[in-house]
Amino acid sequence: MAPVMRRAAILAVGSELLTPNRIDTNSLAITEQLERLGLEVVYKGVVGDDREELAVAVRTAMSRVDLLVCCGGLGPTDDDVTRDVMAAVLGKPLAEDLRLVAHIQARFAARHMPMPAINRRQAMVPAGARVIDNTKGTAPGLWFDDERCRVILLPGPPRELKAMLAWSVEHLLAPHAPGLSLVRRVIRITGRTESQTEEALQPLYAKWAGQPTVVSATILASLGQIELHLSARATTLAEGESAVSMASGDVRSVLGLNAYSDDGRTLEQVVGDLLLERGYRIAVAESCTGGLLASRLTDVPGSSRYVDRAVVAYANDAKVSLLGVPVSVIAEHGAVSEAVARAMADGIRVGAGVDIGVGVTGIAGPGGGSPEKPVGTVAVAAVVPGAAKATTFRFGGDREQVKFQASQAALDMVRRLILSLPAV
Amino acid sequence: MAPVMRRAAILAVGSELLTPNRIDTNSLAITEQLERLGLEVVYKGVVGDDREELAVAVRTAMSRVDLLVCCGGLGPTDDDVTRDVMAAVLGKPLAEDLRLVAHIQARFAARHMPMPAINRRQAMVPAGARVIDNTKGTAPGLWFDDERCRVILLPGPPRELKAMLAWSVEHLLAPHAPGLSLVRRVIRITGRTESQTEEALQPLYAKWAGQPTVVSATILASLGQIELHLSARATTLAEGESAVSMASGDVRSVLGLNAYSDDGRTLEQVVGDLLLERGYRIAVAESCTGGLLASRLTDVPGSSRYVDRAVVAYANDAKVSLLGVPVSVIAEHGAVSEAVARAMADGIRVGAGVDIGVGVTGIAGPGGGSPEKPVGTVAVAAVVPGAAKATTFRFGGDREQVKFQASQAALDMVRRLILSLPAV
Repeated sequence: MAPVMRRAAILAVGSELLTPNRIDTNSLAITEQLERLGLEVVYKGVVGDDREELAVAVRTAMSRVDLLVCCGGLGPTDDDVTRDVMAAVLGKPLAEDLRLVAHIQARFAARHMPMPAINRRQAMVPAGARVIDNTKGTAPGLWFDDERCRVILLPGPPRELKAMLAWSVEHLLAPHAPGLSLVRRVIRITGRTESQTEEALQPLYAKWAGQPTVVSATILASLGQIELHLSARATTLAEGESAVSMASGDVRSVLGLNAYSDDGRTLEQVVGDLLLERGYRIAVAESCTGGLLASRLTDVPGSSRYVDRAVVAYANDAKVSLLGVPVSVIAEHGAVSEAVARAMADGIRVGAGVDIGVGVTGIAGPGGGSPEKPVGTVAVAAVVPGAAKATTFRFGGDREQVKFQASQAALDMVRRLILSLPAV
Repeated sequence: MAPVMRRAAILAVGSELLTPNRIDTNSLAITEQLERLGLEVVYKGVVGDDREELAVAVRTAMSRVDLLVCCGGLGPTDDDVTRDVMAAVLGKPLAEDLRLVAHIQARFAARHMPMPAINRRQAMVPAGARVIDNTKGTAPGLWFDDERCRVILLPGPPRELKAMLAWSVEHLLAPHAPGLSLVRRVIRITGRTESQTEEALQPLYAKWAGQPTVVSATILASLGQIELHLSARATTLAEGESAVSMASGDVRSVLGLNAYSDDGRTLEQVVGDLLLERGYRIAVAESCTGGLLASRLTDVPGSSRYVDRAVVAYANDAKVSLLGVPVSVIAEHGAVSEAVARAMADGIRVGAGVDIGVGVTGIAGPGGGSPEKPVGTVAVAAVVPGAAKATTFRFGGDREQVKFQASQAALDMVRRLILSLPAV
């Protein structure tokens, strides 16, 4: 193995992980541990319970990285092939480890059951490999080195894997870690497209690349959500934190209010915290978002302190009877209009006797569009006594995506409205 | 390429997919399509935005499978390297495709925006590769063949990917598919635990295993949702479909009303279809679900035909003023009680003048619990003129999981209430 391990790969083994219904999530927990030690995961793979495929994947990884972590395929049945494949890769025979046989027998005995014969397979160890004890199950882990790469084999069940991963971190990884910790931060952005954000941030990338502690950035965009992922590798955790904090400050000074979170908080959490901070209560009147805006606001623990009520008024007469929207405003401007959004926001605010009212009305589709107001047209209004905002958006995407983007726009409007008010 | 494609690999490209926060899910949709065609996915991989790693992964896959599907890395920014790497793998230069430039410009023009200069990169095509049009975004797909392998490159955003995958299946894959189709079907189940379901279905498993077309089954359970996944491999799609249809019939005869869907429909779609079929309209009164129940009902296209309105009454006075819940009922039974849920359902039903009313009141947590009514206690009621159902549940999990399970229980109660009424 390399004296210092820098590059890592993770392989998940199991045919069920190649079906449309299952996904490998063990690699997330493993990645988190490796990044803290300063190792970089350059590659992840999933292979089925197939000797040849697994052997190719293991050999390819071992030729390219300093550390390979494999999970799965250590059970007692015929389709658990990891042990056999590793013996073949090492070119060494498997032999029964009597201490492991006793350990597995003891686990069954503790549950007053005889050990089934097939579980003996779990005590087979390739010559040259060493055992990682499993305190939560019967499948032992294994590890071995070749000249270039250390290989760690862990069982698939997450509960068993986590305990054995912690042991491996301490005994097999930490002593050989590069000590260059990777620190990450996510900045969440509204009010700009991906390319506008990229163009605005372009000059910062050059600056960050030239620093002693280099900060890297990636933009991830989906409808209604832009994230900037910053990362820095540094000899100490504190140094890394300081570099991404400075970079985050740079981003905020370029993007201003368009950057709403750099600490993992969602938009609904940011809005909730602002409402709590100012002591405001909010009420919501929705049409096309159909309850999603209220549901997102109330996803936040403690939101009952500032969410008073919400009304989903799909039918026009519900807008009139529950929200007091004047029939004449609907007749003059149409149900999807800033005037109606504004009247909905006013109506729910006054009815609830709270500080802030929000109104959303639009066409989520797929039906209901017209040439002047196509599917995706959404009017949003937010009001407080003495101030109001209203905008008409035209969102792309399907029904659920229009709903999400509209709820995102409404939350963002509330955020900007609150920030425009003088702090008490 | 091989005349008949049997073995496939899927590569997801993007450094964010190697972090502890993100996971590739595109491969699930791709796998489903490939399995229907009879292709076997032998291998999945994730690589970062790294030219060398991607090139190695692509070359390794191309030497081992008949079909490689790559997703991601086709965006306009510097870290979108898939186009460059494929040109290198092919050993061919990139050239600008003027038709693609026009297509991308047109997409920006439709949003009244100029095309940023960097988006021109998306019009670069390696010589020998052909374009897959993207109707939902700016990133075009690409495909090419070498002697052994067909390679298809799709963009990462799922909405864009899905449309282009459908086109690829029809034009690039179906003509070369081996025809031993894998047919899957998912049966969705409520009202039983995972182990109760398993016990009830045990005798069926033996029957299915002895058939000429064997049907396999796996149960996947999460909070509020049990799914039975059936699969059969057969020489024709029709034969496979017929085997899983028979198995699905067996399951329905064992589980009765507890099996609510075997055609991919969600519970909200099943409820929506029942409402449409019977010509009923519905109104919803929510407390702890905070709008989620209304939002799920209105996720269904066309739901404006049967959803009249919803009220989220967090505060007690909102329950009284908006829903007409008698103060005395709250005082006597507490806000979280079947009596209040029932009064909420009655209140919204009468206020809206519709056929069905639903009421949900409970404690989503993390605060608000008490020894008699701990976090997770939720009362649900559903009413029609002359009939009503009400139940108190105790759900586990965190706030969002309690919200989801409560909305699931409410939808299921509406479904069972409608099915208990004589069809008109």
